[in-house]
Amino acid sequence: MAAAVNGAAGGDTKAAFARIYDALKGELLKDPAFEFTNESHQWIDRMLDYNVLGGKLNRGLSVVDSYKLLKGADDLTEEEMFLASTLGWCIEWLQAFFLVLDDIMDDSVTRRGQPCWFRVPQVGFIAVNDGIILRNHISRMLRLHFKKKPYYADLLDLFNEVEFKTASGQMLDLITTHEGEKDLTKYNIGVHRRIVQYKTAYYSFYLPVACALLLSGENLENYSAVENILVEMGTYFQVQDDYLDCYGEPEFIGKIGTDIEDYKCSWLVVQALERANESQKSVLFENYGKKDPASVAKVKTLYRELDLEAVFHEYESESYKKLITEIEAQPSVAVQKVLKSFLHKIYKRQK
Amino acid sequence: MAAAVNGAAGGDTKAAFARIYDALKGELLKDPAFEFTNESHQWIDRMLDYNVLGGKLNRGLSVVDSYKLLKGADDLTEEEMFLASTLGWCIEWLQAFFLVLDDIMDDSVTRRGQPCWFRVPQVGFIAVNDGIILRNHISRMLRLHFKKKPYYADLLDLFNEVEFKTASGQMLDLITTHEGEKDLTKYNIGVHRRIVQYKTAYYSFYLPVACALLLSGENLENYSAVENILVEMGTYFQVQDDYLDCYGEPEFIGKIGTDIEDYKCSWLVVQALERANESQKSVLFENYGKKDPASVAKVKTLYRELDLEAVFHEYESESYKKLITEIEAQPSVAVQKVLKSFLHKIYKRQK
Repeated sequence: MAAAVNGAAGGDTKAAFARIYDALKGELLKDPAFEFTNESHQWIDRMLDYNVLGGKLNRGLSVVDSYKLLKGADDLTEEEMFLASTLGWCIEWLQAFFLVLDDIMDDSVTRRGQPCWFRVPQVGFIAVNDGIILRNHISRMLRLHFKKKPYYADLLDLFNEVEFKTASGQMLDLITTHEGEKDLTKYNIGVHRRIVQYKTAYYSFYLPVACALLLSGENLENYSAVENILVEMGTYFQVQDDYLDCYGEPEFIGKIGTDIEDYKCSWLVVQALERANESQKSVLFENYGKKDPASVAKVKTLYRELDLEAVFHEYESESYKKLITEIEAQPSVAVQKVLKSFLHKIYKRQK
Repeated sequence: MAAAVNGAAGGDTKAAFARIYDALKGELLKDPAFEFTNESHQWIDRMLDYNVLGGKLNRGLSVVDSYKLLKGADDLTEEEMFLASTLGWCIEWLQAFFLVLDDIMDDSVTRRGQPCWFRVPQVGFIAVNDGIILRNHISRMLRLHFKKKPYYADLLDLFNEVEFKTASGQMLDLITTHEGEKDLTKYNIGVHRRIVQYKTAYYSFYLPVACALLLSGENLENYSAVENILVEMGTYFQVQDDYLDCYGEPEFIGKIGTDIEDYKCSWLVVQALERANESQKSVLFENYGKKDPASVAKVKTLYRELDLEAVFHEYESESYKKLITEIEAQPSVAVQKVLKSFLHKIYKRQK
């Protein structure tokens, strides 16, 4: 997924948030539940810096931003800032856990401008266990700082449920893309929506706001409408990602898209399949998922014929209108502000 | 780890326990937190049968056995049997999660008499995600059946902490065995104890009893002595495993040991290093960790020269005496019975 999601905390917040990483890492490295040796201490220290840092931290920072909006004040106490940031870092740890393991499953080469962790000499498949440890660190941090809070069990449930949804979405993606290599007719908008919703939307959009709500003493059972809106926004975000993979400027989005080559169940191919006549369909069946540039060019030409750019812009403005209407139906103005801040960060983004 | 750990439930218990697997699997396959497709439903169904079943179920059954001893009655209500069995199955799921991922990390070929899951055609690295899903299933089962219990958060903490210890032990094993390939002097009894304790003892010995204690309404903070005894027993169990890898009858233990070839930090090599003179040490340094039978034979000859069989039998009887003394110092007779039942299942085992 691209970088722009839910970012834009002020410089001060960013610096304070970054300092809290060092505090959290320090605590994990002296966790009394394990007797560290020098080697294992060094290993975890390096593994954390390599995998948790280096991203834009947008998901993590958005916990702090959302909490401020819910509280209706920009100045948090030191404790509030620490707790909100800890939850934000837990999401960053969760993201690191997913990325380390996804890169192994996808046999990827680079991540955030450096070799994937499992490709680092002397790491290899130890990266699988490092992924597990990243996930375990979340439980350790939550226990250390939230055990006494009345919402502790809800917090554990939240992270567990979101992780389960994400892994289930990843399963769907993996088995659909595999099976799909034999049969493009398996790709349709329902399949696409399901993969995107479970694999990306819950942890990237719902989780930060749910963390901020719990921290504010709210019961998540009262926020199923907010959950739905955020999941819809996450889906919209991923559709943008699919669009930019083909139509974005590589210098601008920071990567060269390969969804066509990789046989991805992209929103674009799903739209193309819906609109193509028989001869256009056979162009797709013959060329989608092939590495050679000529095949990729034929698919892109077909996308142009079907005017998928216009289809996307129509989808974008319809989604925006629908989301704004749903947001403005929310009873709490503070919650509206949180949701609008997410929406305005991503609407019509170019990268 | 070998099969004999903490087994021996009656036939009736085993049959009832097995039936509860079907009920739990059925619930997981209609979990409302995910919208299953036909393909993903089939995938999980098959993945669970392949990886959760096929073992001896000793860890899982020992939750039921321990709970009966703590309750002081053989006849459980249907609800008690269901809850104790669910916790038992959670441990079996945890074991499946570890085994699926360990086999990838160790590049293993077979497990429980069938190909490792990642070696099954069409599975491959999807097995990494399946491992994550196995772990997530534990949280789903606990939430469904224990959310309302006063000890729910303690149960989540228990599984989280034991998983963290196990993954930390696995890390130590992985990085020690890697680094070790350059330097056998890194192997000593402290390193061995630490790997074994964290990687095996907590989840195999402490976890089943801790589950039974929570189910009985006990506070685990009052049972740190019990924890220590069980961890010691788990360590003793693994030393037996290391011994049997070299001295057990392959037909009897059901596998051909390869610890010498695999450069394992085995209890035997640690004892040999402690007792060897300079020329014997060089035999070890030259031959340990090599695949060819002549090198393996030289190591085994050295073990015989150092009479490691006698060293092991001395360790075995000393451990037994120490454990019995510690067990009999426990204030609760029911707890003593639980601990003795574990000890008597493993003392002087031949497989």
